[in-house]
Amino acid sequence: MIYKKRTHTCGELRLADENKNITLNGWVSKKRDLGGLLFIDLRDRYGITQLNIHPSKKDVYDKAEKLGNEFVISVTGKVIKRESINKNIATGDIEIDVDVLEVLNESLVPPFVIEEDVKASDELRLKYRYLDLRRKSVTDNLIVRSRVYNIIHRYFEKHNFLEIETPILMKSTPEGARDYLVPSRVHKGKFYALPQSPQIYKQILMLSGIDRYVQICKCFRDEDLRADRQPEHTQIDLEMSFVTQDDVFEIIEGMFHAIWKEIKNIDLTIPFKRMTYDEALQTYGIDKPDLRIKGDVKIENITEVVKGSEFKVFNDVIESGGMVAGIKLSGQEVSRKTIDGLTEFIKKLGFGGFGYLKYNADGTVQSPMTKFLSEEIIANIKKAFNANDSDTVFILSGEKKKVLLALGQLRLKLAEDFKLRDETKFEFVWITDFPLFHYDEEAKKFESEHNIFTSPKDEYLKFMDSRDVKEVESIRANCYDIVLNGFELASGSIRINKPEVQKKVFDMIGMSDDEAKMKFGFMLDAYTYGAPPHGGAGIGLDRIIAILCGLKSITDTIAFPKTLKASSLMDECPSEVSKEQLDELGIEISKKE
Amino acid sequence: MIYKKRTHTCGELRLADENKNITLNGWVSKKRDLGGLLFIDLRDRYGITQLNIHPSKKDVYDKAEKLGNEFVISVTGKVIKRESINKNIATGDIEIDVDVLEVLNESLVPPFVIEEDVKASDELRLKYRYLDLRRKSVTDNLIVRSRVYNIIHRYFEKHNFLEIETPILMKSTPEGARDYLVPSRVHKGKFYALPQSPQIYKQILMLSGIDRYVQICKCFRDEDLRADRQPEHTQIDLEMSFVTQDDVFEIIEGMFHAIWKEIKNIDLTIPFKRMTYDEALQTYGIDKPDLRIKGDVKIENITEVVKGSEFKVFNDVIESGGMVAGIKLSGQEVSRKTIDGLTEFIKKLGFGGFGYLKYNADGTVQSPMTKFLSEEIIANIKKAFNANDSDTVFILSGEKKKVLLALGQLRLKLAEDFKLRDETKFEFVWITDFPLFHYDEEAKKFESEHNIFTSPKDEYLKFMDSRDVKEVESIRANCYDIVLNGFELASGSIRINKPEVQKKVFDMIGMSDDEAKMKFGFMLDAYTYGAPPHGGAGIGLDRIIAILCGLKSITDTIAFPKTLKASSLMDECPSEVSKEQLDELGIEISKKE
Repeated sequence: MIYKKRTHTCGELRLADENKNITLNGWVSKKRDLGGLLFIDLRDRYGITQLNIHPSKKDVYDKAEKLGNEFVISVTGKVIKRESINKNIATGDIEIDVDVLEVLNESLVPPFVIEEDVKASDELRLKYRYLDLRRKSVTDNLIVRSRVYNIIHRYFEKHNFLEIETPILMKSTPEGARDYLVPSRVHKGKFYALPQSPQIYKQILMLSGIDRYVQICKCFRDEDLRADRQPEHTQIDLEMSFVTQDDVFEIIEGMFHAIWKEIKNIDLTIPFKRMTYDEALQTYGIDKPDLRIKGDVKIENITEVVKGSEFKVFNDVIESGGMVAGIKLSGQEVSRKTIDGLTEFIKKLGFGGFGYLKYNADGTVQSPMTKFLSEEIIANIKKAFNANDSDTVFILSGEKKKVLLALGQLRLKLAEDFKLRDETKFEFVWITDFPLFHYDEEAKKFESEHNIFTSPKDEYLKFMDSRDVKEVESIRANCYDIVLNGFELASGSIRINKPEVQKKVFDMIGMSDDEAKMKFGFMLDAYTYGAPPHGGAGIGLDRIIAILCGLKSITDTIAFPKTLKASSLMDECPSEVSKEQLDELGIEISKKE
Repeated sequence: MIYKKRTHTCGELRLADENKNITLNGWVSKKRDLGGLLFIDLRDRYGITQLNIHPSKKDVYDKAEKLGNEFVISVTGKVIKRESINKNIATGDIEIDVDVLEVLNESLVPPFVIEEDVKASDELRLKYRYLDLRRKSVTDNLIVRSRVYNIIHRYFEKHNFLEIETPILMKSTPEGARDYLVPSRVHKGKFYALPQSPQIYKQILMLSGIDRYVQICKCFRDEDLRADRQPEHTQIDLEMSFVTQDDVFEIIEGMFHAIWKEIKNIDLTIPFKRMTYDEALQTYGIDKPDLRIKGDVKIENITEVVKGSEFKVFNDVIESGGMVAGIKLSGQEVSRKTIDGLTEFIKKLGFGGFGYLKYNADGTVQSPMTKFLSEEIIANIKKAFNANDSDTVFILSGEKKKVLLALGQLRLKLAEDFKLRDETKFEFVWITDFPLFHYDEEAKKFESEHNIFTSPKDEYLKFMDSRDVKEVESIRANCYDIVLNGFELASGSIRINKPEVQKKVFDMIGMSDDEAKMKFGFMLDAYTYGAPPHGGAGIGLDRIIAILCGLKSITDTIAFPKTLKASSLMDECPSEVSKEQLDELGIEISKKE
């Protein structure tokens, strides 16, 4: 196809280019007829340039009149100064006085108008994803994503990491209930699995002496998709040898610093805050605290403060080893309706209700509990929360962890309802020292909280032979998450590298040598040939891009996303395949449901 | 795990570091006892450093004596000048006078010694891939690979390409006989396919206005693996809008230039040579000519030269429209045994044998054909080949394409047998102007030679409505390969962007509108909404790395390769999965075979 190729892009020309003869190629984004004069907004990835088509150039004008939206054209003409400047676009000072117009391709009328304020359902936009992607805001997300890749590649290259591809066709693990399986044609009746993460490969790479590994890779989970999950997501995967937790933190913090600097021109404060899992739970009732919430709404344990009151609810809880705790909402008008709404919310979390104390501006206290609590206790509660007049304190009592988690949820609910989040902030925090095991009351056995290669902290090794629930549950792991604005972005650990410690973990969870060998086979072998100390993390890229682009959902950070039902509306997959294809693979679709 | 972390790597210390107190972490690569003095080669990814352990430091010495190969240790000591310098390693001027030695991990005796000249079968090395990867040469290949990724990322970023991930879970295409399928759990009875290439997505991205796309991505083919194929291979995938073939060439040439410059410090001559498919076939009898062959062994068509001889074989061939052609081997001793070997070779290609003319140093000609050919013809053949004394000309006759392909094979065979390849050379060449269709004599219909979006060259559009075999087979496509040293590295085309041209292609291959819609569904729709002119290529990364590293096979360019049977010997996949897993997916393994 022979045509006049562009000399410039549609985002490039400025006043300095005045009088130049140029050629542009692009899409007709908008056409306006202003009393004989035709104006066209010509669009490409780089921007929009206005074309001015004068009726005196009859040939061009006649062609231009027939153009529809989304036609692809090539125009040649002179850059001229615009009469009315458009400050909204980078090329707004100029327009093109068109001399030659060539139609490179026509377009049917699109099913929706391609504009920022798009009026089409999500379904329609996903079906015609190629049209939706023409919108600047969607393209811009992909541009940010591409820039972030490049920052990441450059950053890890500078730090001597090797980028290594790990297999997509791997072995299904026995825990792999959510593995996507791939039938093998060559080995009928056998299957590959798609990786839920390259975990085993990156550990193997450390055993191979690779020292520093990174990869931006796809991970797959065939699970019932919750809001904002995708069957395939992208992970920045890394692993390092001869390191401690601090080394891993430093590398990852540096990466985030580089990304935020280049994309947002923000100098993140590093090192990031650190908080143990216990502290996060006790202070924020969640292991991924959103630290953007103004007024620093925190959980206060007031069990000791209310001890000895005449309130039976509290006394029963305290007697059975439970907890009384609350959070404070500062300086907000809390109406009856608000209280009712919050009560509904708390009931859904399995509580009968909550207590509250409203410290009025006039010094009085409004509370359903005043009749049960002495003035001294009410004053002490106020002191415990450091509450001022016009603050409200919400109180829950019950089993300790349940109370903390509910208060954590209540905190987020208050932040949402009262708009307490500072949306301009990026609050990173490392959550560390997660528990290694928990006791499953039903199964009457200990279970690993993380992958079985996660190492216990040295100071807890003494409990690795204990079977006392309290002692074992107290064991803390060299395991960490990075949380940004309440989202868990990354998770990692320092791995067990000694077979004898690994054995203790298997013993703890009641796994026999045979079972361990069956399940983890070659990995256990591999660790007997000189495994270095090593650790790393997997960092969710999609969420990072969503936060950088100010998107609520990760969908628009992905060029071709799938729906919550794991379908692609554009190419209509998954789809039925022919019997011949299945025969080739030696599988059949089950008749029974 | 608390231990002394390294201050330096094992490849880092030099004479300038003399007397520094340092700590190294690494693997015991070799231990030598020289009359009381212990020497250890300590290895990590970065190199090897010699440790000197003096018996006067009893504690250290006792520990060191117990070390086995592949133990992981931390040592602290002083950098001292070595008495006998080792010029083979970068740290060969120094050694470490060890004061502290800590064993970080032990190792069983490995199943093979980890050394460059490894004495283990391929199978054993693949099973213990993590040990084989500890060998410097294997790690070095991965380092080159990682460096090449970074060069590519940087190069395309500089040229304004967006790196965009396309889905791994996609729709199975009707041509997808070699698709890996993935059963869907959510939509039972339906399947995804793994991409054989991101072709449809990159074209869609051009329709989306992305303008310049690149991705380093995995592609999958469930085929019977020929030598040196992998079920998953890596492709540098790119596509550009508003371009012609020359623009695509320029970008790709620039990429190769950047890679060769940085990895080999070689300035490749760009632009690369170009050769049409017809020229390649007629000159080298193959569409991926190896241009390293010395003496420039080329095919000469001597049909006209031998016309009118009394040789029935030639005459019959010429009468039936066939061809007589040959290649010349210069200045090599061609023995009876060689002739016999080559005859065997040619017979396997479906010929009765071949003719040859050996021009002896004494001026005589040795040939089984002399009795059928006049002296004049023999002289003219010599002239046609520009042959000198001591050259040999090999001649075949038969159907034109068959003769050319056989001579192409013979050329490679001679290059191999007589070591005619200049192994130091990197001979890049673009092969262009491939045919768009061929006529299938059996099916009595035309078939596409490439993917159905490949565009015909403008000057052949006139034949798109013809059904004359000769005319249709003469249609040349905007389709190109890049060939390096006889390997096809990349393949691409300028795509059809006009629905009316696409329709002509479907008509040509006898595909009805309904069938086209069923097979290519949304893609055809997409092209009705203003598709820009666009084109691109897919470039095989594994082979590039193999050539850069001087490897015959791509296996060692991949961290975790599979065997020719598409198995991983390390993690033993593919493998059987549980009935529960299959039930979840709603599939069964066929009973029948």
